[in-house]
Amino acid sequence: MKRLAILGSTGSIGVQALDVVARSGGRFEVAALAAGSNADLLVEQARRWRPRAVALADPAAARRARELLGPGGPEVLEGAAGVTALASLGEVDVVLAAISGGAGLASTAAAIEAGKTVGLANKESMVLAGELLMRRAAEKGVAILPVDSEHSAIFQSLAGHQRPHVRRLLLTASGGPLRTVPAAELAAVTPARALKHPNWSMGAKITIDSATLMNKGLEVIEARWLFDVDPRRIDIVVHPESIVHSMVEYVDGSVVAQLGVSDMRGPISYALAWPERIPLELPALDLPRLGKLTFEAPDPARFPAFMLAYRALELGGTAPAALSGADEAAVAAFLAGRCSFTRIAEVCAEVLEALAPEPVGSVEQALAASDWGRRQAERRVAG
Amino acid sequence: MKRLAILGSTGSIGVQALDVVARSGGRFEVAALAAGSNADLLVEQARRWRPRAVALADPAAARRARELLGPGGPEVLEGAAGVTALASLGEVDVVLAAISGGAGLASTAAAIEAGKTVGLANKESMVLAGELLMRRAAEKGVAILPVDSEHSAIFQSLAGHQRPHVRRLLLTASGGPLRTVPAAELAAVTPARALKHPNWSMGAKITIDSATLMNKGLEVIEARWLFDVDPRRIDIVVHPESIVHSMVEYVDGSVVAQLGVSDMRGPISYALAWPERIPLELPALDLPRLGKLTFEAPDPARFPAFMLAYRALELGGTAPAALSGADEAAVAAFLAGRCSFTRIAEVCAEVLEALAPEPVGSVEQALAASDWGRRQAERRVAG
Repeated sequence: MKRLAILGSTGSIGVQALDVVARSGGRFEVAALAAGSNADLLVEQARRWRPRAVALADPAAARRARELLGPGGPEVLEGAAGVTALASLGEVDVVLAAISGGAGLASTAAAIEAGKTVGLANKESMVLAGELLMRRAAEKGVAILPVDSEHSAIFQSLAGHQRPHVRRLLLTASGGPLRTVPAAELAAVTPARALKHPNWSMGAKITIDSATLMNKGLEVIEARWLFDVDPRRIDIVVHPESIVHSMVEYVDGSVVAQLGVSDMRGPISYALAWPERIPLELPALDLPRLGKLTFEAPDPARFPAFMLAYRALELGGTAPAALSGADEAAVAAFLAGRCSFTRIAEVCAEVLEALAPEPVGSVEQALAASDWGRRQAERRVAG
Repeated sequence: MKRLAILGSTGSIGVQALDVVARSGGRFEVAALAAGSNADLLVEQARRWRPRAVALADPAAARRARELLGPGGPEVLEGAAGVTALASLGEVDVVLAAISGGAGLASTAAAIEAGKTVGLANKESMVLAGELLMRRAAEKGVAILPVDSEHSAIFQSLAGHQRPHVRRLLLTASGGPLRTVPAAELAAVTPARALKHPNWSMGAKITIDSATLMNKGLEVIEARWLFDVDPRRIDIVVHPESIVHSMVEYVDGSVVAQLGVSDMRGPISYALAWPERIPLELPALDLPRLGKLTFEAPDPARFPAFMLAYRALELGGTAPAALSGADEAAVAAFLAGRCSFTRIAEVCAEVLEALAPEPVGSVEQALAASDWGRRQAERRVAG
C-alpha cells in the first residue's frame, strides 16, 4: 500500500485526489494532509482518512483544527514550516504537491530532499526552480510524476520510446474561456467572464492564466525542465475540446498522443498509482459521440502571454520565477478589478524586461525572484 | 547495418519500403527482393539495390529477369518455393512480408522458422494462421513488427505501458470510399467508384476491402493475434481523415494514440528500423492546418462485412481463413463485374456459416481452409 501526503488537500486537485483514493479499492493510505486556511474541510478530510498528521499554513486555522479534532485526532502542524515538514514524514512514500502558486515550492523541494516520489501538480515548482529541482531529483533518484494533464500526457506519450527520437513536444491548450473573443473586446473582459472555463473546473488563478494563455506558457517552462527538452522544440496547439491532452512528435513524423475525458482524476490517479493504473470507473472517452476534435494555432496577437514564457526561458536563470511572480500579482489585480485583462500580459512583459536575470542557486533565491516579480507587477498595476 | 529481404517488392508496400531504404542514410542493405510476376520492375530494383538474390513467383517472369540481369546479376529463384527460400536466407536479418493475400503466408511462416525479425504487411498471415504463427514466433523468440498503419499505431501505443492495464484496442477506419453512400445505392456501386480511396494509395483488393469494411474486420483478427487481446475488447472507430492511426484505452480511461500523415512509409520505416526511428523528412503532421479530426461509429447495416470477422473469431479455428479466402474470391468477382458490391459480404457470410471449423494445426491446413472458402465463394457468385 502506498502512503500519501496530499499537500493542498482542500484545493481543487487535493479534493479530486481524495476522490481517486476513495475509488482505488484500498491501494492508498492517506498519511498526511496539508492545506492553507480551510480548517473545516481539512478536519472533515482528516476524520474520514485518519492521517497521522495534518498541517495548516494559517496558524489561526491550525488552532481551529486542533479544537475540532480534539485530543484523539492527528497531530496538527502549523505554518509554512508545518506544511513542509509533512513532505519529509517517514511514513510517506508519495507526496502529491498540489499547493497552488509559489507557496508550493518549498514543500516540493523538501519532498525531493527526503527522497519521496513526487506527484507534481504545483507547476510553479518547475517554473521557479525547475533546473535546480530536476538536478536534485536526479541526484536523489527521485521520480517526479506530472499531474498537469498536459505533462501527464507527454509522460505517457514518451513511455517506451527513446528520448533521442523526440522531435517536438506538442502541448495542447483549450484556448480558454476567451478563445473566440475579438482583440478589440479583450481589454473590457470582466473577471466573471474570464473565469468561465469551457472544459476544466479549476481554481481562479489557473483559470485566468488559461484565459491569457499564460498557463500554457508556464506549462512550456514546466515541460522544458520536466522532460529536459529545448524550448524551441516545444510547441503549443490550441485544441478547444481538451480531449487530446498533449502529444510527442518523433523524428520519423510519428506522433504519440494521450487522450481522455476532461477529468483531472485521470492524471492524478496516473501519478499516484504509477507504474500501475487504477480502474476509476469514470465515463470512457467516446470519440464517435464527441464527433470531432478541432485544432488551431495559438494567436500571439490576442494572447501574447504565452510568448513571454519562451522569452523568460531565453533570458534564463531567475527570469521564469520573476514572470511567475509578476503573473500572480497581475492576475490578483485583475480579479480584484484593479487592472484590465490585457494589462496582465503587458505588466508581465514589463517586469520581465526590467529584470537582470541571475542563475538560480537555491529555492530561496527562486522565491526571492518571484517576490521581486510580484512587487514589480504590483507597482506597475498601481502606477 | 540491417540486411533486408523485401518480399513483394514490386507491390505498393514494397515500392514504398525501398523509398524508405533510400531515405534512411545507409542504415539498410537490401539482401533479397521477391515479387510475383513484374520482372521489369524487379530487375530495375535489383540493378539499383544489388541484392544477393531475387525471386519471382511466376517462372516465366523469373526467366525474363534472368535474361535482363545477365550472368553478372544476382541469383534469380523462381516459384513460390523460390520466394519462400529468400525468407530464410542466411544474409537476412529482417524480412518485410509484403506479399498480398494468402500467397504471403508460407514465406512469413518460413521467416519465423528461420528466426528472422518479421515486418508484417501481409495481414493474411495473421488472419489465416495467427494463433499458430504467434505461438511459433514466441517459441523462436522472433519479433513480429506490424506494418499495417493501424497495428503499428497500436504497437506504438502499447510501448512502455503494461499489458494487464489494457482495456480496449480502438482500431480506426477511414470508412473507405463509400462511407457516405446511402444503403439503397450500395448494390449499384461500380468497381471504379469503390476503388477511389480518399486517403490511402493501396492495391485494388485492399481498397475494395476498405470500401466494404472487411479490411477493418481482417485487421480485428490480425490485432487479436498480434496483441493477444480478446476480440470483445477490440472496437472499430470510423475516422475519415485517417490521421489517428489507432488507439489503446487503458483501465484508468487514459487513451494512448498514434497519429501521423497518411503515408505508409511511416509504419514501414518504424517496422524496419525498430527499436530505432529514422528521420524520413516527410511532411510533418500539422493539426492546426488540418483543423479537425472527425469520428463516428461504424454502420453494420450498410457495411456488415466487418462483423463477419468477429463472427469468424467466435467460430474459431479455420473460420477466419475461410472468410479470408471467400473475401478474396468475392472481391475478385466484384472487380471483374461478376457480382454486386453488396454481394461481397453476403457471399462471405454464407461461406462462413457453411463451414465446419477445425483447429488450425499447420500452414497447409490454413491455406486449405482459405482455398475452400475461395471455391465456396466462387460457386456462390456463379450460382
